[in-house]
Amino acid sequence: MDLLENSGSWLSLNEIENARANLPIVYVDAIPVRVDANGEVTEVGLLLRAMPDGSISRAVVSGRVLHKERVRDAIMRHLEKDLGPLAFPKLPASPQPFTVVEYFPDESVTGFHDPRQHAISLAYIVAIEGECAPSQDSLDLIWVSPDAATSPEFEREMVGGQGRLVRMALAHCGLLP
Amino acid sequence: MDLLENSGSWLSLNEIENARANLPIVYVDAIPVRVDANGEVTEVGLLLRAMPDGSISRAVVSGRVLHKERVRDAIMRHLEKDLGPLAFPKLPASPQPFTVVEYFPDESVTGFHDPRQHAISLAYIVAIEGECAPSQDSLDLIWVSPDAATSPEFEREMVGGQGRLVRMALAHCGLLP
Amino acid sequence: MDLLENSGSWLSLNEIENARANLPIVYVDAIPVRVDANGEVTEVGLLLRAMPDGSISRAVVSGRVLHKERVRDAIMRHLEKDLGPLAFPKLPASPQPFTVVEYFPDESVTGFHDPRQHAISLAYIVAIEGECAPSQDSLDLIWVSPDAATSPEFEREMVGGQGRLVRMALAHCGLLP
Amino acid sequence: MDLLENSGSWLSLNEIENARANLPIVYVDAIPVRVDANGEVTEVGLLLRAMPDGSISRAVVSGRVLHKERVRDAIMRHLEKDLGPLAFPKLPASPQPFTVVEYFPDESVTGFHDPRQHAISLAYIVAIEGECAPSQDSLDLIWVSPDAATSPEFEREMVGGQGRLVRMALAHCGLLP
Repeated sequence: MDLLENSGSWLSLNEIENARANLPIVYVDAIPVRVDANGEVTEVGLLLRAMPDGSISRAVVSGRVLHKERVRDAIMRHLEKDLGPLAFPKLPASPQPFTVVEYFPDESVTGFHDPRQHAISLAYIVAIEGECAPSQDSLDLIWVSPDAATSPEFEREMVGGQGRLVRMALAHCGLLP
Repeated sequence: MDLLENSGSWLSLNEIENARANLPIVYVDAIPVRVDANGEVTEVGLLLRAMPDGSISRAVVSGRVLHKERVRDAIMRHLEKDLGPLAFPKLPASPQPFTVVEYFPDESVTGFHDPRQHAISLAYIVAIEGECAPSQDSLDLIWVSPDAATSPEFEREMVGGQGRLVRMALAHCGLLP
Repeated sequence: MDLLENSGSWLSLNEIENARANLPIVYVDAIPVRVDANGEVTEVGLLLRAMPDGSISRAVVSGRVLHKERVRDAIMRHLEKDLGPLAFPKLPASPQPFTVVEYFPDESVTGFHDPRQHAISLAYIVAIEGECAPSQDSLDLIWVSPDAATSPEFEREMVGGQGRLVRMALAHCGLLP
Repeated sequence: MDLLENSGSWLSLNEIENARANLPIVYVDAIPVRVDANGEVTEVGLLLRAMPDGSISRAVVSGRVLHKERVRDAIMRHLEKDLGPLAFPKLPASPQPFTVVEYFPDESVTGFHDPRQHAISLAYIVAIEGECAPSQDSLDLIWVSPDAATSPEFEREMVGGQGRLVRMALAHCGLLP
């Protein structure tokens, strides 16, 4: 979620601070899943991330859409950044997200929380067919069963409401335990 | 769309006639598509079929869900029957169809028409990654661009409202011309 | 869920038994909700029902689609049967259900369970604007908050997986606790 | 689509220019519809608008989401601005849009075009139950049948791809002619 990168239209740190203070920022959330031959989800991928405050959290793939970037390109870019170049993600054919997540600095508004900004995120479920090699600020990636992914143990390790987002994704797949 | 097959619970011709006369029949429609590396649809697959009345039509993959068969299994079975065993279809992770099609013997009800029965069909868009070898009553399969698939020329070759279904599928993919 | 009624195409008890033994039956599930002025769900409606085995359960509105009946007409018919004629339900403009539920006699298949039959159900969330007067086999109707509707207390009072269906509906509305 | 208003976080004209030049802007599109007692769309509402360049166009309801504004509140605000305070819009219970529209200054990218900015818009179908009184820069509102709304005559009067968006909305409602 490095907001400094901005292909083709660089923003200074100051300009980013200003934008964040005045506009909702467009995000994409991608829930990586393994599926069986029939397309049914068998496992959910959770990243291990170092957070800005130094703590460690489980997380899904998430990041900003850049100026003049297609939504599909943004999802692919963040997946490659977090899962490496050989993950071979299969994006859905439709741009319809399974939900829209509204992250607010004040966590009482929606329960989805981002201390830095008001972000509006399009959330997709993405089947991953290749080999993953977590990179950049992702320390690790684990694949867990739908039951494990929605367990209190893992949900406690996720912040900002992402544990709830994982449960919403599994509900959409008919697999909420 | 051979209603005689019925894995595990064989129906006599007479019983099928009776069921069709008294109950809506559950169907699945699968619109085969080719997608690019970002998941965007580049081509639509259209079958060439010999119809019961001896005419030839373009069509999408369509067929009945059997007793005690999972919806996913039904989609895979019909895809394999029509596209062969090496098509490697990628079903969506969610059971949510992009639309529900109501086929009536009377075509004035919904515009979707099946002279044999009242069928309620769950419609999905399915990316095809492998090699297709049309089989059984499918005489041929062609891949056409979204623009061509929605052209009056191809729409005239489809019956029962399937030309409209293809346009609805492309609208769902953000690609209605 | 009285399978004897069948507007325009009466089925004998024997024919229903035969159909249930040989075909999946098309159902609709409607989750009644109260919404605020912005359309956000504030309460979920749960019926109290006498079950075939004499027990009492909480349930959502659910029933069969008849031969030559439109899906919308089936949803309206079951809502009126369970909530009375002054409920003024507001059906979604799109036929796309939020999920498809596969009820099997064997509950190990999907977790959704109907001892009588294999049913494939299109599930919708329906805002109720009017006054409800539970009728027929519905003994009572209560409105509960999303939090209460997903509590273990209420979930224990629902059978066949309907507690899970309520959670899936709330997840789709962005309100899974 | 007046970007100067910004409840709670005022942006100078200069800051808006800067944001538009550096970030995608979050929009909502609402397609107003009249529905019958069963929820089926009977008419589509089209605004008559004076465009920035002085021309007159047909359009759906569309506008920006403000900083710290809920998506639902933004839709309601734009509907009230364009249809007046007595329109009584019925927003869907789910935040899942029927599609996401990507408007680019370069119309060759997606076919959806906004000369001023890169906008990413969440599109919803909204049933209108009350009386409409077009206000502000909406000169008029007409209700037309699905067939008329998708006719070449009306599509020619819409700009930026909104004619296509109306067809996509009707496809989602099962009513694409």
